Amino acid sequence: MKISGVLETCLCAADLDAAEVFYREILGLEMFAKQPGRHVFFRCGNAVFLIFNPEITASEVTTINGDLVPLHGTTGAGHVCFRVGEEEIPRWRERLKKAGVEIESEVNWPNGGTSIYFRDPAGNCLELAPGRIWGLP
Amino acid sequence: MKISGVLETCLCAADLDAAEVFYREILGLEMFAKQPGRHVFFRCGNAVFLIFNPEITASEVTTINGDLVPLHGTTGAGHVCFRVGEEEIPRWRERLKKAGVEIESEVNWPNGGTSIYFRDPAGNCLELAPGRIWGLP
Repeated sequence: MKISGVLETCLCAADLDAAEVFYREILGLEMFAKQPGRHVFFRCGNAVFLIFNPEITASEVTTINGDLVPLHGTTGAGHVCFRVGEEEIPRWRERLKKAGVEIESEVNWPNGGTSIYFRDPAGNCLELAPGRIWGLP
Repeated sequence: MKISGVLETCLCAADLDAAEVFYREILGLEMFAKQPGRHVFFRCGNAVFLIFNPEITASEVTTINGDLVPLHGTTGAGHVCFRVGEEEIPRWRERLKKAGVEIESEVNWPNGGTSIYFRDPAGNCLELAPGRIWGLP
């Protein structure tokens, strides 16, 4: 009996329209569901990446066929790192610059691999990196 | 040029010792790094699951070989869903109960599959679910 991975990775953003445009058009994620004002959901590899508006999800109870979906919601900058191919880092750097997204930092990790850091419109701290920074294939 | 998945999923917790015990001993994740007071890191499938103390990571600048690691940190309840086998849900229910972890809710999703919801010691909203709830294998 073992957890086999993360199925849902989440961030919070009050402006879901801005988040939708950013993640879909700049990062190229496939949006597959949204509930205006509450959430916008994306496919990401073999899992999903979910953006919630914490003003709603932390206070308004939702039920599915009578079952309670628990409340949650954060403020402040969350962090997610998305996995990209090592050889694609230079092209990501370019795409972000062209889209007017400021690269806040780049880190060359001791074990190899480079991370690019930037912010989403809500101020969440995003990173693009190859699996190698964690010794992953 | 495509994001191939999430490499780092993060939650915040001020009490890292409590988080470490919870995720290692109750959820069975493999801890592979920690910096007392700042973070505790776990392997999770083909990616990593990171817990940060936002009191530190939102305010204290860290550098790696002179490169800046950007500030981030949240307050409030974050949310992560971990992937488990559908047939293992009853045993997870038992394990959580034995460990004194209250199951806050269970949701039977319209497309099939059941989620178990509970909290980590920091109040983050956790979920165990099979990929099926998102149409994933």
